[in-house]
Amino acid sequence: MKCIRCKKKAVITLKRHNAAFCAECFLHYYRNQVLKNIQKNKMFKKDDKVLVVVSGGKDSMALWDVLVKEGYNVVAMYINLGIGEYSNRSQEVVENFAKKNNLPLIVKNIKEEFGLDIYKLSKTLKRSPCSVCGTIKRYLFNKVAYDNGFSVIATGHNLDDEAATLLGNILNWGESYLARQGPVLPQTHPKLIKKVKPLYTLTEKENMYYVLLNKIEFLHEECPYSVGARSILYKELLNELEEKSPGTKQRFLIGFLEKGKKHFKEVENIELKECKTCGHVTTTEECSFCRLTKVSNTVS
Amino acid sequence: MKCIRCKKKAVITLKRHNAAFCAECFLHYYRNQVLKNIQKNKMFKKDDKVLVVVSGGKDSMALWDVLVKEGYNVVAMYINLGIGEYSNRSQEVVENFAKKNNLPLIVKNIKEEFGLDIYKLSKTLKRSPCSVCGTIKRYLFNKVAYDNGFSVIATGHNLDDEAATLLGNILNWGESYLARQGPVLPQTHPKLIKKVKPLYTLTEKENMYYVLLNKIEFLHEECPYSVGARSILYKELLNELEEKSPGTKQRFLIGFLEKGKKHFKEVENIELKECKTCGHVTTTEECSFCRLTKVSNTVS
Ligand SMILES: [Zn+2]
Ligand SMILES: [Zn+2]
Ligand SMILES: [Zn+2]
Ligand SMILES: [Zn+2]
Repeated sequence: MKCIRCKKKAVITLKRHNAAFCAECFLHYYRNQVLKNIQKNKMFKKDDKVLVVVSGGKDSMALWDVLVKEGYNVVAMYINLGIGEYSNRSQEVVENFAKKNNLPLIVKNIKEEFGLDIYKLSKTLKRSPCSVCGTIKRYLFNKVAYDNGFSVIATGHNLDDEAATLLGNILNWGESYLARQGPVLPQTHPKLIKKVKPLYTLTEKENMYYVLLNKIEFLHEECPYSVGARSILYKELLNELEEKSPGTKQRFLIGFLEKGKKHFKEVENIELKECKTCGHVTTTEECSFCRLTKVSNTVS
Repeated sequence: MKCIRCKKKAVITLKRHNAAFCAECFLHYYRNQVLKNIQKNKMFKKDDKVLVVVSGGKDSMALWDVLVKEGYNVVAMYINLGIGEYSNRSQEVVENFAKKNNLPLIVKNIKEEFGLDIYKLSKTLKRSPCSVCGTIKRYLFNKVAYDNGFSVIATGHNLDDEAATLLGNILNWGESYLARQGPVLPQTHPKLIKKVKPLYTLTEKENMYYVLLNKIEFLHEECPYSVGARSILYKELLNELEEKSPGTKQRFLIGFLEKGKKHFKEVENIELKECKTCGHVTTTEECSFCRLTKVSNTVS
């Protein structure tokens, strides 16, 4: 098989695009996709201060690297969630990359700084660890971005993630989720920083190729709490469809963004207040992060 | 396990309803579902002349039987599609049931009456057999209903069929298909008879129980042309989801009908004409059935 761009020997085939690339042309394709996504969706410009959310996994490492190489003004942020060895190893990966490339990195540790323990909180509150973790991450990334004058938060969500989330939202017809799902979550309040997903058209596999070809170290294992999550089942089902009919996943997601999403509207305009404890935006008296912190203080 | 209605020993469990029934109470539940579907969706009344589409399979046999027993004014119609032994055996099943219960039945044979051969047409036109078959069936059921003053056509589509079709329409974001999908396809032209699906909330398995408990003969095999059809893959995937989380299929379909469908509108109002050959409603000069007949005359 030959590279469709330079006609040299191809090493990577992308069935859904009916394309094959040599290593160099794949990286060209990859960068182009990211740049196109950023520009087409007006995610950010060269003078925007971008906070990149990194976990040590292939997706966020690829995002971090490509944004740096393309000359965007980025600072990475990592949260140590205190999930045993998984968290320690991922922090190491992220710190090594920052050091090696002399890149700015903000590190937060929820156990040391806030005394939060996801496992304990999950048990006490009878909520899934992923839901507790999501609350904490959303809060901290937004807070750091707001406090330090970032204009946008970028995450490594890929095509597989987005298609799986969409399938879940569709199976349950969550109208307000459908209204909000997309590569850009605009700023709806001065204290809620805009969020973007520059890799939303690139698959897990393509992000994997990107980090491998660039010899970027990353953590192969998934978060131990994610085992058995519904999203993994959805990914498997979409992979079965993709196998039978390459392009299904992209058609499903892009079709939604172009033809489906416009039909859904956020069900109601919920009034936003400021948290009585920390001042963050919330819909209740006290924000969910501050409530977690209180529960945490009570049980420990 | 005990029957949730009469507390006798249960023989059937319906996980998605968190219910178990004895044989008698299952039939009570089944009939109630059908009646509720008919009334809630204003499908037809006791004085409507209903044409029931029968194929000899469990779904349409269940529908035929339940509508007769509930005292609706129904006539069944069967089309022999000339698909070898499959068609012969299914015609026998349908004729036996009509004879045994002294029920009116209209039988059409596309090879004998119209010289149509699905396999040949499919090869000549490079269309799938299912697509050719669909054109023929839609035309003939509608024509017979119109010519004989029926007010509605009822088909045996079940929850599994409808959820699989919905998944296909969603994966491709077929907006006009989404706008039309539902248990009732209203009459949009005097020559296009209203179509309804009274079994749309009942699963394949429940229709199977119904025919078994009522000792109704039916054809177990599927149409040989349906093997490998996309719809079968969609059913399998939905069954995997249902297995992990009972109720998913129903939530998906009913959620769409209640919350999703309203957002989609038929993309354009296509002008309807009358076919220059047969007078049937069409969007082109000559209807697709008459064109099939011409192709058929040319190749044979
Ligand atoms: Zn090349
Ligand atoms: Zn707060
Ligand atoms: Zn009972
Ligand atoms: Zn015609």
